[in-house]
Amino acid sequence: MNCEVVAVGTELLLGQIVDTNSSWIGERLAELGIDSYHQTKVGDNFNRMFAVISQAVERSDAVIVCGGLGPTHDDITREVLAAVMGAELVQNETAAERIRSIFTDRGRDMPSNNLRQADVPDGAKVSSIIPGTAPGLMCPVRTKGPQGEALEKVVYAVPGVPWEMKVLMEEWVIPDLQQRAGITQVIVSRTLRTWGDSESGLAEKLSGEIERLDRLGHATIAFLASALDGLKVRITAKGDSEASVREILDSEEAAVRRAIGNEAVFGVDDETMESAVLQLCRERGETLAAAESLTGGLVAARLAAVPGASDVLKGGVVSYAPEVKFDLLGVPEGPVVSTAAAEQMALGVCDLLGTTCAVATTGVAGPDSLEGHPPGTVCMATAVRGEVESMKVDLPFAREQVQLFTVLTVLNNLRRRLLALG
Amino acid sequence: MNCEVVAVGTELLLGQIVDTNSSWIGERLAELGIDSYHQTKVGDNFNRMFAVISQAVERSDAVIVCGGLGPTHDDITREVLAAVMGAELVQNETAAERIRSIFTDRGRDMPSNNLRQADVPDGAKVSSIIPGTAPGLMCPVRTKGPQGEALEKVVYAVPGVPWEMKVLMEEWVIPDLQQRAGITQVIVSRTLRTWGDSESGLAEKLSGEIERLDRLGHATIAFLASALDGLKVRITAKGDSEASVREILDSEEAAVRRAIGNEAVFGVDDETMESAVLQLCRERGETLAAAESLTGGLVAARLAAVPGASDVLKGGVVSYAPEVKFDLLGVPEGPVVSTAAAEQMALGVCDLLGTTCAVATTGVAGPDSLEGHPPGTVCMATAVRGEVESMKVDLPFAREQVQLFTVLTVLNNLRRRLLALG
Repeated sequence: MNCEVVAVGTELLLGQIVDTNSSWIGERLAELGIDSYHQTKVGDNFNRMFAVISQAVERSDAVIVCGGLGPTHDDITREVLAAVMGAELVQNETAAERIRSIFTDRGRDMPSNNLRQADVPDGAKVSSIIPGTAPGLMCPVRTKGPQGEALEKVVYAVPGVPWEMKVLMEEWVIPDLQQRAGITQVIVSRTLRTWGDSESGLAEKLSGEIERLDRLGHATIAFLASALDGLKVRITAKGDSEASVREILDSEEAAVRRAIGNEAVFGVDDETMESAVLQLCRERGETLAAAESLTGGLVAARLAAVPGASDVLKGGVVSYAPEVKFDLLGVPEGPVVSTAAAEQMALGVCDLLGTTCAVATTGVAGPDSLEGHPPGTVCMATAVRGEVESMKVDLPFAREQVQLFTVLTVLNNLRRRLLALG
Repeated sequence: MNCEVVAVGTELLLGQIVDTNSSWIGERLAELGIDSYHQTKVGDNFNRMFAVISQAVERSDAVIVCGGLGPTHDDITREVLAAVMGAELVQNETAAERIRSIFTDRGRDMPSNNLRQADVPDGAKVSSIIPGTAPGLMCPVRTKGPQGEALEKVVYAVPGVPWEMKVLMEEWVIPDLQQRAGITQVIVSRTLRTWGDSESGLAEKLSGEIERLDRLGHATIAFLASALDGLKVRITAKGDSEASVREILDSEEAAVRRAIGNEAVFGVDDETMESAVLQLCRERGETLAAAESLTGGLVAARLAAVPGASDVLKGGVVSYAPEVKFDLLGVPEGPVVSTAAAEQMALGVCDLLGTTCAVATTGVAGPDSLEGHPPGTVCMATAVRGEVESMKVDLPFAREQVQLFTVLTVLNNLRRRLLALG
């Protein structure tokens, strides 16, 4: 089974919008074991859309068309699919009713062209789920195989608005694709987020496990690097039931944790470094503050971005200028790119804000040197119940990467100390 | 003249990397007035690459193939292009020498497969610029037109590494494309970044100017919305020389500023809100601090991200917990979602850090209500030389958008006050 993706929209070709939909769909198809050999962007033009979709139907088993289902006159995916099927457009009463009710519920008049979104090719199935105002379409298309034999392919149409597309994919398109592909197996991924090791370091530690899984064939391990979210280890398992897959994932997660060190894993799936730190503080009754020079408020902002952070996070001081470090945080006048300065910043912000824990960052983000230290020189400290620890690193990155790396590292240092508290 | 883009790489189909190269190329082609009707992603597979590139050559005047020029064995763009041309691969001595010298200069041994990057289809032109280790290729391909007439098309190959691709596009591919397209005209864009008006509001104010330009045909105006960078108005002009185009842009920029209000424009091209604010402070001898509750450090972090911010930005206080507002910033105990609290936060952080200016944010990011105010209730204040101003807004957005909108709005409020200082 293979499935290709056609993204529709002149704005995609003009680079006004980056087509992230195809990438997302490609990733989901790969997780399901469905091949995707081609992904094409085409503008809102009848003839070119017709040619691209017809070719996709010829060379692939299934096609997902993304976009062009809106209410305006350049949204012509419905018309093109009708032509590809050799069918007329007919109004689908269920979809029309649903669209009318969306406007009634919001107390707004419905512009009449919105009803265009209920026009569907005769013979197409219409999704009962309508996340926005356009339903998904499932269009059977008859074509001929290499020996002239009759084949029935399928073209799905989903809106180009990412969240609408994702809802329809997960709840409607993917289950149908799985059924057509005869995928009765359940496929589930679990992602372990790690910090502290390089990709090649992790690959080495996991090489035995990866080889073992290659032989067994019921699970795979992949690495995904992300500057903001750490280095991810994704375990994908398949089996006959949710329960059996969960069992495989649990056992593989344990094996990965043994191989790379349990403490290297800071979160599972969507769990971020900052939410992990906040949760550990919460469990231990700790409160938290940040004293930031190099990172300029990024640590506090990431912590504050977590809903419900306020029971742990009291706030922070952005001590960008040296005199703020001296006057507010009690750093002795002198060099500010030093572990001693970072340590006093952490202790000082605990005192100032009345918290039990703190993180602190100082150093040289670049592009210029500071106090004789080259860009990338970073000093970090963590304070836990009056005890302070620090480290100094030299990072061979540009300004923004230096800051991101520092945010994750200093939070990870605190996380490991909180874990050690038990 | 039209030109299509083929992005090569299995990792693109699997969604491990989002194809931003095609979008960037599409945007540049549009600026040059060259149509791009198709953009295709294809994996590292000889037959599929051959089919996709051959079809692109048939239907377009020029083709840009992006990726597959690396040194490893799955990088096969060179082989595929040789097949499309019906030519052999030959080693290009200049490119080979250049690749050897890159490794010698770094004092490293060259893995022998790196020399594969100097193999080129016989008859292809090789770029003298080699930003990374792979040169660009310019491959003439003979094909037949609709009446069987002989046509010569061109296929360019550039690396998939974004910065290498951009250097080769700007310095080598685009000049050649312009020459082939007979574009002797110079085309230049200028972007005005604005804040305060909606897209439809700006469109209304500029409708007369847009109509006038449509009639004249020497310049166009487009709108680009971006949550992080404000609403952009892009003016694109063409003419016979750099000087004449600059004259058109200057005159159009003046017309746009008149129509939408000069103060609505906070920056030109790459100039950000935070760099504009820092520059205005610098010119007026002001120093700056931030007191942040709702935005949790984001304002300070954006200011600190600007290289050279330290002469103006002293730092800030993230007063996430109410007691930090009371104890450090002198907010009277009581409600913290109020313009009065925001005003005292701004004055308080000026006092604490010894600055002449400050911005302050407080409010309800969500998802929960606070002090009876729904999510999206935001109070902002600016302090300039002891004088404080504030505003309260209700934002119908999700948590992250509420924070981003607040960062831009409070900085914009300060910008307008600094401008009024003269």
